[in-house]
Amino acid sequence: MTKGKLFVISGPSGSGKSTVIREVFAKRDNLYFSVSATTREPRHGEVNGINYWFLDTQSFKKKIAEDGFLEYAQYVGNYYGTPVEPINEHIQLGEDVILDIEVQGALQIKEKVPDAVLIFVFPPSFAELERRLRGRKTENEKRILDRLETARKECEKADIYDYIVINDKVEQAAEEIMAIMSAEKCRTKNRICFIREV
Amino acid sequence: MTKGKLFVISGPSGSGKSTVIREVFAKRDNLYFSVSATTREPRHGEVNGINYWFLDTQSFKKKIAEDGFLEYAQYVGNYYGTPVEPINEHIQLGEDVILDIEVQGALQIKEKVPDAVLIFVFPPSFAELERRLRGRKTENEKRILDRLETARKECEKADIYDYIVINDKVEQAAEEIMAIMSAEKCRTKNRICFIREV
Repeated sequence: MTKGKLFVISGPSGSGKSTVIREVFAKRDNLYFSVSATTREPRHGEVNGINYWFLDTQSFKKKIAEDGFLEYAQYVGNYYGTPVEPINEHIQLGEDVILDIEVQGALQIKEKVPDAVLIFVFPPSFAELERRLRGRKTENEKRILDRLETARKECEKADIYDYIVINDKVEQAAEEIMAIMSAEKCRTKNRICFIREV
Repeated sequence: MTKGKLFVISGPSGSGKSTVIREVFAKRDNLYFSVSATTREPRHGEVNGINYWFLDTQSFKKKIAEDGFLEYAQYVGNYYGTPVEPINEHIQLGEDVILDIEVQGALQIKEKVPDAVLIFVFPPSFAELERRLRGRKTENEKRILDRLETARKECEKADIYDYIVINDKVEQAAEEIMAIMSAEKCRTKNRICFIREV
């Protein structure tokens, strides 16, 4: 059986990345969404294994020591990390794995898994990004300006990604991600064993 | 406007490459099929600019001297070549160009156009390749064995291609080629200018 592949998707807040990923999951089977682990307390309604894997600090640190994370970071006093085990399991089962992570985490993963495919989701323009962030109406001016500044910094690192998807229309962006997933399976390095067998 | 890309497709006789390419043209717009030039006489029904560009030897040699071919070769006393001009024109117009060529020609093109994407179409097995060749019933035993031997040699060079498409079902193989074409447009090197502009 052909093994699955790891697709790492990043994009600034307002790029519409999550909506695009949902569209991909709605259209494709044989996909697994990587769930992060965290030491922060579950919020109301959050389910273990769906929103996060909720771990206590001791278990989290033990997992770090055992090299159980593809990447991890500390943020506002809590740990966040990508558990390697479920990803490997699903890849062995022939499923593709999608991992939604910010730029620093993506860089760490590329180092550990050179075979991972990195996709950067981009808004059609900065004006549109700003419009989307303001449209949420849940954030104050300072927060919006912070997010725009972070977006600018993240976009500067887009050149380390393998692919750039411009999310003008969600359907089109999802199609592009699915095309990338299909094309990557055809890469010679992934199929040359087949040729040799024949 | 985004420029088009050059896709070079090879595959042994019996791989079903031509049928797959026809299917891609039936489903996609904005595509140009590169027509070869030759010094051989047109056969009955062959149309200049459709089947081949028919040139006399003097014109062909002049074009060689002017670096007017992406590749060329001599075969049974006649010249065959890939004119560079129509390819460049269509790429500038934003159209993708498909070029159907054997392995040696593909290697020459990859050297001249490092940006070209090379796709190798493969039959699902050698047994199937043999079945397809025998199914044609137009060729004698020696010719079939020759073709099988050539196919084996060509497949050994498949690792210089960027992608391998296994033509088990024509529709599926065409979908894979279209996915490759879409994905290649998303490659960071092709889109990073967009990011910089933004």
